[in-house]
Amino acid sequence: MWFQIRARLAYAFAERCETLLLLEAARSPDQAVHSDRLTISPEVEMSHLDDSVSGERRIVFSAHGRVDITYDAQVEVMPRDAGLKGVATAPIPDLPADALRFLRASRYCPSDRFERFVHREFGSLEGGDKVAAILDWIASHMDYTPGVSDAATTALDTFVDRAGVCRDFTHLLITLCRAADIPARAVSAYAWKLKPPDLHAVAEVYLGGRWRLVDPTGLAPIDGLIRVATGLDAADIAFMTIFGQAELISQTFAIRTIRAPKGGSLTTGSHGARDIGA
Amino acid sequence: MWFQIRARLAYAFAERCETLLLLEAARSPDQAVHSDRLTISPEVEMSHLDDSVSGERRIVFSAHGRVDITYDAQVEVMPRDAGLKGVATAPIPDLPADALRFLRASRYCPSDRFERFVHREFGSLEGGDKVAAILDWIASHMDYTPGVSDAATTALDTFVDRAGVCRDFTHLLITLCRAADIPARAVSAYAWKLKPPDLHAVAEVYLGGRWRLVDPTGLAPIDGLIRVATGLDAADIAFMTIFGQAELISQTFAIRTIRAPKGGSLTTGSHGARDIGA
Amino acid sequence: MWFQIRARLAYAFAERCETLLLLEAARSPDQAVHSDRLTISPEVEMSHLDDSVSGERRIVFSAHGRVDITYDAQVEVMPRDAGLKGVATAPIPDLPADALRFLRASRYCPSDRFERFVHREFGSLEGGDKVAAILDWIASHMDYTPGVSDAATTALDTFVDRAGVCRDFTHLLITLCRAADIPARAVSAYAWKLKPPDLHAVAEVYLGGRWRLVDPTGLAPIDGLIRVATGLDAADIAFMTIFGQAELISQTFAIRTIRAPKGGSLTTGSHGARDIGA
Amino acid sequence: MWFQIRARLAYAFAERCETLLLLEAARSPDQAVHSDRLTISPEVEMSHLDDSVSGERRIVFSAHGRVDITYDAQVEVMPRDAGLKGVATAPIPDLPADALRFLRASRYCPSDRFERFVHREFGSLEGGDKVAAILDWIASHMDYTPGVSDAATTALDTFVDRAGVCRDFTHLLITLCRAADIPARAVSAYAWKLKPPDLHAVAEVYLGGRWRLVDPTGLAPIDGLIRVATGLDAADIAFMTIFGQAELISQTFAIRTIRAPKGGSLTTGSHGARDIGA
Repeated sequence: MWFQIRARLAYAFAERCETLLLLEAARSPDQAVHSDRLTISPEVEMSHLDDSVSGERRIVFSAHGRVDITYDAQVEVMPRDAGLKGVATAPIPDLPADALRFLRASRYCPSDRFERFVHREFGSLEGGDKVAAILDWIASHMDYTPGVSDAATTALDTFVDRAGVCRDFTHLLITLCRAADIPARAVSAYAWKLKPPDLHAVAEVYLGGRWRLVDPTGLAPIDGLIRVATGLDAADIAFMTIFGQAELISQTFAIRTIRAPKGGSLTTGSHGARDIGA
Repeated sequence: MWFQIRARLAYAFAERCETLLLLEAARSPDQAVHSDRLTISPEVEMSHLDDSVSGERRIVFSAHGRVDITYDAQVEVMPRDAGLKGVATAPIPDLPADALRFLRASRYCPSDRFERFVHREFGSLEGGDKVAAILDWIASHMDYTPGVSDAATTALDTFVDRAGVCRDFTHLLITLCRAADIPARAVSAYAWKLKPPDLHAVAEVYLGGRWRLVDPTGLAPIDGLIRVATGLDAADIAFMTIFGQAELISQTFAIRTIRAPKGGSLTTGSHGARDIGA
Repeated sequence: MWFQIRARLAYAFAERCETLLLLEAARSPDQAVHSDRLTISPEVEMSHLDDSVSGERRIVFSAHGRVDITYDAQVEVMPRDAGLKGVATAPIPDLPADALRFLRASRYCPSDRFERFVHREFGSLEGGDKVAAILDWIASHMDYTPGVSDAATTALDTFVDRAGVCRDFTHLLITLCRAADIPARAVSAYAWKLKPPDLHAVAEVYLGGRWRLVDPTGLAPIDGLIRVATGLDAADIAFMTIFGQAELISQTFAIRTIRAPKGGSLTTGSHGARDIGA
Repeated sequence: MWFQIRARLAYAFAERCETLLLLEAARSPDQAVHSDRLTISPEVEMSHLDDSVSGERRIVFSAHGRVDITYDAQVEVMPRDAGLKGVATAPIPDLPADALRFLRASRYCPSDRFERFVHREFGSLEGGDKVAAILDWIASHMDYTPGVSDAATTALDTFVDRAGVCRDFTHLLITLCRAADIPARAVSAYAWKLKPPDLHAVAEVYLGGRWRLVDPTGLAPIDGLIRVATGLDAADIAFMTIFGQAELISQTFAIRTIRAPKGGSLTTGSHGARDIGA
């Protein structure tokens, strides 16, 4: 499927400071960015800190006063298999080297605290069946409720509070998977059909030889996720990190499907794509 | 300087399980491993998960019952500049891409909680002077006391408890540096002159265009640290991660200086090296 | 000094539920309530749960919809000695039986975590000098900043965050005193000269044979505190506990000095008192 | 039933310090202490800090070096009704004034964090049925496992860890009851049939117009509990609080049933009681 992404952000910087922006669609293997354009106004010097392995695109800029950021992109997302049932756990020695770190506890995912819980609740299951059971457990034990959590909320807090938003659901899923020795990581993504449209936090688990996207909130279809960043948890995938003080003025996102251009493909680019609507 | 490392570990595995071992000297640019040998008895199949970027060497093996692990190595450590005073902070846009993640909070280093403290206490200083002041603060406000902390202790706990061991001191230093927007990471290292000899946890900060080792406990000379692993915090650099149950039987380490062989260098290897003593 | 207290509260109760109100000036030995009047509109049945020992006056009522609460009182506060320097610690065996529980950790005052800190920082001092040094430490290490803390914030959080409001300063003082084996408790009080006028949280420490009020924020004079409730920490002295859901509509307080009526005294009452102004 | 209690404690005090001992059977309405004797050797001066309301008996003594404490008592426990099913919740206005504080969060029982959990899991139940359901939930979700918890462990930790000992089970039950607006408190008691014999931590809930003992571990019969202390949580009922450093040398307890003396009753005392065996 092809998607048109549109992001409009405005911030007021109280003083000149560096800002790290992680807002652009990743050039990752599971999607093709056919065209995109990031603008910052007033114009600033942007340093690019792209990651050639993950395809993530970070920029750093320095600004003061009001700053308007726009991002527009046309991205093709490859079909994804969202099925989990029956998928085998990857044995530890078969994990790719870079998956190992996603077995470990992180700032918001203290998986070391949940080993007994996971063993008691899901100990009889393996692989994809275990992840599916964890997703069911979250769906039946958690309320999706804004206002309960904040930037310091960990998966342990969420497990106790029994409520949170996409970020919290994602942290809880990641934590329980890691506690069960299944590599799990956080992904920020533009999410089609999410209401209101927003950057969404979802998880990715390593099963059956590859990473698989899962949405513990169930709010967005897997095939409509356009990946921006991938990391240990929310600390890694924040779309904006301000090394100083700034205030949000406004922020809007829109994600719509578009018709693929005739002959549109990974190799031809997509300059002729027209909007069709969500 | 040249060092001879000797490690002898014995564990009893209650059941067959996978174990990740991160015990070998890293093939990193700041040291040369002239010869080394890892043995596991009884013999097991070892899967190697080496990291070509960091030079870290991980193995995974599966074992049951008593397991004896031995490691012997001869490593040459390049001279290091341990000075911090006057060294400049690296601007965010000048950071290497892989240094960015060491600005973020991690499992044991919740640096997001310490921004006000760091600003109040060290806000007037910059770069190496700031790190030096943080080291002084730790030295004068913390007791090196075993038994206060455990595997779940975070830098926040240590900040309150005012005591801990090398791991805790390292987490606290890393946390305060990151809160001051200075990249900081954890390093496990064989430490010459540490009493008793042990794998030591120290920190590394990014200043003046490169990573610099610092020991917040002050217990080991910087030039006598032989790097094993580098990571976000203790969650990343554990020398043994057991995916099951095992009991420690015994564990001894020895690190001694040795005379460099005639013509000994990075290019010739070191098979003729003889022990000289610590 | 004589004070005129005026409180006006309005709440909207989403459903009928019980509410515990702890808003009236206490009939405690250090102050005389010459006249006062609590009204709830629309009229409700009030159950009185007064505490004859502390002089605290709690009422329970059940309400639904909008509720307006008014409280007016004329209270004479006895002169207090706010000096701490040189005052002796009370030996444990000399403590009144009911002071013992104020040596223990409570919900927001985990004093068991601060023994080493208190010993390191204030170990050479005793009694009132120690409390004075703790007050100085708080004044020089904390920012009075609304918005940093919330209802779940403990003294441990505040110690790390280095900022908070009166409740947080009070919890921190209580925690450090208990960690030093000095009984300390929380007091809610109408506070003269506080800006804006409000119910204030302060602490009380047991030294030299009696309880002594202290204000770790330094925002209100000790002689202008009209006591409402006394307890382990904020969990005990909340002026309103709603066993259900309600929303604050508005809340205003005014505390002014008034001239004592001719012949006004503890025994004559004060029905003729006239307002003079703050 | 009549019980013979025997406690033998030995401690080594590194330096002279005050110690608070809360080891004697309470003279509470639900039991009669027919005879008892506390000895401390070498002889020390004991200050008694008995609580006339609760019947608790605290002593304070100062000691140095090795101290042997013995306690022997004959106590008659009145029959108790352990049934919970169908027992009504006490409305807030009908609570005795001193029950209110057992609705609030305390050091080890952060009940404010569990309101949503309790509402989701047990919201459809009332009174004794709700407490019974909470007990069932604890029994089916927790392991009784020494070594998981320590002196700093809260009910929140235990809820996550899914394991603990009697103190932890008691904290969790109290926390969940308070979150459901049911007063709950902690009780230390000599426990008949507990293996090994020990001071046991149990809970007491206020339902149907009175306090009712419950043992969330199910390890000891309710009729065989001899009450020592009652409080908010473990912070209140510790049998020994040392204001300094001491080391445990040994500690043994024995609790046996004995035959009531002929004519034995609350008024005659029990000096002729003979041991019959457990």
